[in-house]
Amino acid sequence: MTANRNEIPYKIYLTEDEMPKQYYNVRADMKEKPAPLLNPATHQPMTAEELEHVFCRELVEQELDNDTAYFDIPQEIRDFYKMYRPSPLVRAYCLEKKLGTPAHIYYKFEGNNTSGSHKLNSAIAQAYYAKKQGLTGVTTETGAGQWGTALSMACAYLGLDLKVFMVKVSYEQKPFRREVMRTYGASVTPSPSETTEVGREILKAHPGTTGSLGCAISEAVEVATSTPGYRYVLGSVLNQVVLHQSIIGLETKAALDKYGVTPDIIIGCAGGGSNLGGLISPFAGEMLRGEKDYRIIAVEPASCPSLTRGKYLYDFCDTGEVCPLAKMYTLGSQFIPSPNHAGGLRFHGMSPIVSELHHQGIIEARAYEQTEVFQAAEDFARCEGILPAPESSHAIKAAMDEALKCKETGEAKNIVFGLTGTGYFDLTAYQQFNDGTMTDYIPTDEELQEGFNAIPQFPGNEI
Amino acid sequence: MTANRNEIPYKIYLTEDEMPKQYYNVRADMKEKPAPLLNPATHQPMTAEELEHVFCRELVEQELDNDTAYFDIPQEIRDFYKMYRPSPLVRAYCLEKKLGTPAHIYYKFEGNNTSGSHKLNSAIAQAYYAKKQGLTGVTTETGAGQWGTALSMACAYLGLDLKVFMVKVSYEQKPFRREVMRTYGASVTPSPSETTEVGREILKAHPGTTGSLGCAISEAVEVATSTPGYRYVLGSVLNQVVLHQSIIGLETKAALDKYGVTPDIIIGCAGGGSNLGGLISPFAGEMLRGEKDYRIIAVEPASCPSLTRGKYLYDFCDTGEVCPLAKMYTLGSQFIPSPNHAGGLRFHGMSPIVSELHHQGIIEARAYEQTEVFQAAEDFARCEGILPAPESSHAIKAAMDEALKCKETGEAKNIVFGLTGTGYFDLTAYQQFNDGTMTDYIPTDEELQEGFNAIPQFPGNEI
Repeated sequence: MTANRNEIPYKIYLTEDEMPKQYYNVRADMKEKPAPLLNPATHQPMTAEELEHVFCRELVEQELDNDTAYFDIPQEIRDFYKMYRPSPLVRAYCLEKKLGTPAHIYYKFEGNNTSGSHKLNSAIAQAYYAKKQGLTGVTTETGAGQWGTALSMACAYLGLDLKVFMVKVSYEQKPFRREVMRTYGASVTPSPSETTEVGREILKAHPGTTGSLGCAISEAVEVATSTPGYRYVLGSVLNQVVLHQSIIGLETKAALDKYGVTPDIIIGCAGGGSNLGGLISPFAGEMLRGEKDYRIIAVEPASCPSLTRGKYLYDFCDTGEVCPLAKMYTLGSQFIPSPNHAGGLRFHGMSPIVSELHHQGIIEARAYEQTEVFQAAEDFARCEGILPAPESSHAIKAAMDEALKCKETGEAKNIVFGLTGTGYFDLTAYQQFNDGTMTDYIPTDEELQEGFNAIPQFPGNEI
Repeated sequence: MTANRNEIPYKIYLTEDEMPKQYYNVRADMKEKPAPLLNPATHQPMTAEELEHVFCRELVEQELDNDTAYFDIPQEIRDFYKMYRPSPLVRAYCLEKKLGTPAHIYYKFEGNNTSGSHKLNSAIAQAYYAKKQGLTGVTTETGAGQWGTALSMACAYLGLDLKVFMVKVSYEQKPFRREVMRTYGASVTPSPSETTEVGREILKAHPGTTGSLGCAISEAVEVATSTPGYRYVLGSVLNQVVLHQSIIGLETKAALDKYGVTPDIIIGCAGGGSNLGGLISPFAGEMLRGEKDYRIIAVEPASCPSLTRGKYLYDFCDTGEVCPLAKMYTLGSQFIPSPNHAGGLRFHGMSPIVSELHHQGIIEARAYEQTEVFQAAEDFARCEGILPAPESSHAIKAAMDEALKCKETGEAKNIVFGLTGTGYFDLTAYQQFNDGTMTDYIPTDEELQEGFNAIPQFPGNEI
């Protein structure tokens, strides 16, 4: 179902009045709920009390609530959203023309803010609840730096202190991201550092290490739990994050509804799952309630194929094995993906919500190799103008493939994908692609098996 | 005159139907016209024929036409504009709150496109007319890279070849900008190069040179005039560019009119003058026709003070002295401003249109030093979210100062400024500011006099 082509503008903007006033919790419509987080010592579900040592109170409530369908978005958060939202739902007229497809392609563009991605949607929510609880600051880790940047913007706005542990190799190789965070007033420490016990231990054991996300998480959690008035916040994977990111899907649905467009296919890239989970939440909800049927496609890199080749088991979320266990599609917390420029998709696991929806058949999954993704990114940039982030380009590649299938069949399907961010800080990767020196790598079954072997084994959680 | 505060959204977006369909040529409403370009050899006005060796035909017509008030924007250009325009007119609620000012502050944000600035508005127009003329390619120079990026996007869209000569020091220090251009298919050559006669001469004379804009212009012009089917295009200063950039001002005025807001003060940063000229064109037109009265403020860096301390004389536009003479406020074509991170404001001269409007008292001018501008940028980023370009931050500083004056007087003035772009590729500068190592420099009268001494002297053009 599509409105007249000419009636649909290049960019659909909701008015401020039309912006969502509530987050939507897709768990409320799932008969089989995502599995709860487990205490790694006892293998019992984490209690609110246990979680509140690490996370803010209201965020813990959101994390554990599988039943409430809608959560009001506080006015302060809505005011912040108005600075960079609603994000446009773009009709990709130029891409359609370039492909010669009868398909109608739409993308929800989340890159029009200084953090350059959708991460800001959850950053402001998490910072808000921390501030409301009377905390003085939060800690977090960041790899490529999108999450750290988003959180630094949110904390600057609310007047909250922020300590970021940035993976040392990124701290040195991505000085621009680091400087954005500093400009927004965050303190940025290369990880591992001498400022934490766990950091000192790691440095003693591995003097030359350039760090890892797992290590940075451990340092951030140590500082959060040992500093009065501090808590730790996380940018993906968690249920609360998918809840906040539902604003992407709600706006997308409202914009499509405004023009009477029903999508046939909805596509998102999947790393930790926060963008994909948010984008598809309201559509998956309709499927779960039996009201509608869509094809939902998660796209991941072939070098880190958690959904397409992983195991659906309880596993650690971090390499350091300090966090609770989550049931998810995982490659094992010790799996180190080969270098891939889509840093945001290099997580070994997947959001429990997205994992369970995939397990139930609501979400299908596919994987692409790096160079074909960059070719799609370049084609897209040259006709649609926007230089996409490598992560987002996985969704672009899938959307283009589906549109080309429509060209063969003559079907005028409506394809919607999430363009999560811009690639302004990923130009080292584009340079490799431009120079023809980019390579692909697909892990062998043996390499994956090695990763699976590190998954904790306990009754009901055998490989 | 202001509508109820609560009626005005954070961001005013025009609909596609409301977007301007014509450019406005402010020269048509000027009784005293900007002085014509002169042939540097004869000191006679450049003819269309002379200019057409270098520039595209229709652009030459636009360049020379002082009488036609409106030029239709071709449908193809309007379609391209729809990909990233209308740009939002943002009500700076958060900045107002932070300053505690009764003033209402608005900014027209031109940074939401991959080139990161307003340059794209003229790039697509110039590429379109080149394509329409049946040319196969264009050449240009770029310093910091915003113009080159914008032009590469426009040429990729239209299927036009592009050869960019990039100042060698920028080519090496700003590899990211270079890679964006390459991703859009442009060939990028560090200047001076061995590929042109003028480049080889310069390299022979100055073997270790890191290049200059003047040299890059000379190389680009040589290639354009010696390659069949090629012309040269320029991103600022020229009348045609101010004409294209009038879309900024027309959209701004339409958005303000929609909410019944009349600005009291309009502020823009001024380098070559294209953004400022475009932003203020429709407002200056009302002043010239005696319909309205506004305060219009041009803001420049104290290190390159063409409007506030320059001479209003005919001068070369380029250091290489190959281009026509333009009458403008100038510091002399040999003036080398001290290092200043607002690369886009380091031009020794000023658009003839802006110069003449300043001469007539329509535009006032002021200059700020670098560190106070970056302080304003940081303050702005922390409350409004957007990380501004150093150039744009000059306008931010002036808007904040005017808003603080309103705080003293209690006046609820409407202040509008142009936020020309984002600072994602300027983080080396932000790092200097964050580290406290940024310095200011104001040229002495003696240094300025040295620059003035190189201005060509002929009857009627004496210092």
